[in-house]
Amino acid sequence: MPPIKIDHLAVVVDDLPAALNFWQNALGLPLGGTERNDHEAVEIAFLNAGDSRIELLKPTTDDSGIAKYLAKRGAGMHHICFAVQDIEAALKHITAQGVELINETPRTREDGTRYAFVHPKSTGGVLVELYEVTEGLG
Amino acid sequence: MPPIKIDHLAVVVDDLPAALNFWQNALGLPLGGTERNDHEAVEIAFLNAGDSRIELLKPTTDDSGIAKYLAKRGAGMHHICFAVQDIEAALKHITAQGVELINETPRTREDGTRYAFVHPKSTGGVLVELYEVTEGLG
Repeated sequence: MPPIKIDHLAVVVDDLPAALNFWQNALGLPLGGTERNDHEAVEIAFLNAGDSRIELLKPTTDDSGIAKYLAKRGAGMHHICFAVQDIEAALKHITAQGVELINETPRTREDGTRYAFVHPKSTGGVLVELYEVTEGLG
Repeated sequence: MPPIKIDHLAVVVDDLPAALNFWQNALGLPLGGTERNDHEAVEIAFLNAGDSRIELLKPTTDDSGIAKYLAKRGAGMHHICFAVQDIEAALKHITAQGVELINETPRTREDGTRYAFVHPKSTGGVLVELYEVTEGLG
């Protein structure tokens, strides 16, 4: 595998202003941006932390995957995302080690970026996302 | 607040070889080191991910804090640790925003490094550690 780095840690929140009071005002992470994703039914806020980001996810409906997670598990860490340079090569390498994927082939977001999730039962209970980036990872 | 970065994401595991098969062999993160901390009753493995690390924590007794967490919540993400340059200044800034700390003054590990945990009720359910580093954070 070529080098990979932590792209972001995703956190499910039930109160976005309260969450921003901690992550932005108290911890001092610069707000990188906010967006609303109606396809996934979430409001998102990104905070920059060095070379990585904290991604706050607030459900906008009661029946989305994130809303159900929040109702079942409560607010907290949701997944960790790693940036990779060639997602198909990464998925091929990972599955060759017996690891099960949620997305066996990469999915594509509206902005054209590609990603796939690894099944938590193969990671020891952690939901892991791989996200393809085109710039170098150093 | 001066710049801070993600130092590590800590993951509680119940099977360290299985966890290393995912994080090291499948995901390809280089093993940075392993250690046994009898004070906290954990075996620890560090994996390097860019400028940050994944820290795997395996309890070595049944009654430690990590063992109780594993029994109650199952394996998975445990806390996120940020590196800061002046932990006393960071804690002062954070508490001025009304955030509650688990450790109101920094604790010191056997190797002399200083750290403090923020209470999850002030962060939206995330256990956050601050860790003082002496080198620059860029």
